[in-house]
Amino acid sequence: MKALVLLGHGARDPVWAEALERVRAALLDACPEATVELAFLEFMSPTLSEAVDALAARGATRVDIVPVFLARGGHMQRDLPVLLDELRRRHPGCELRLAPVAGEAPGVIAAIAAHAAAQARLD
Amino acid sequence: MKALVLLGHGARDPVWAEALERVRAALLDACPEATVELAFLEFMSPTLSEAVDALAARGATRVDIVPVFLARGGHMQRDLPVLLDELRRRHPGCELRLAPVAGEAPGVIAAIAAHAAAQARLD
Repeated sequence: MKALVLLGHGARDPVWAEALERVRAALLDACPEATVELAFLEFMSPTLSEAVDALAARGATRVDIVPVFLARGGHMQRDLPVLLDELRRRHPGCELRLAPVAGEAPGVIAAIAAHAAAQARLD
Repeated sequence: MKALVLLGHGARDPVWAEALERVRAALLDACPEATVELAFLEFMSPTLSEAVDALAARGATRVDIVPVFLARGGHMQRDLPVLLDELRRRHPGCELRLAPVAGEAPGVIAAIAAHAAAQARLD
């Protein structure tokens, strides 16, 4: 079984998680059979470790982790590699792959620009 | 003159600002005549106040502020309304409009989901 984890920063306000829930809903609309879990670095649960542990226990042999971040800040550059090393040692039978952050994807950049232009009626 | 401000959270790592620079570049590709400035809530400059003060000094009569955030967290709900009130009092001749956060735009959600699906080769 392969799975996808949408990894968000997390926030104190529970409404924040709706951003990731919206992305998960869009993914499941397009791929109803997919296994898509959320995970958070701070404030919210499950943590990435909890999410990956649970997926491995369910028999996942590959987990793609997609950071739903605008940019690679300190979390992406420092914390996440350490956490991934630890998870890979704990789950040798499960391939863990880290995708580029969403904010670096050309389609995402174009969509944010289109949103901004529409809001400001620039075009 | 009307202008657009892309408002980001900001981070300690200067590389973080590249996310907003990419969005600005995409906007200017589509609308080369637009006035598009960046502003940050934390760690980076200019602040929103500095950006709006500078635009008002250049004669802006309308500034659309587009929060390049994934979700409305504490900053959007608590800090930003207070800051906007203060800026509106300071610049009565300049209409300040706050757009919905980028992460709530259906096009942005769809683009993040498409990025995730492509990374995980779900489709």
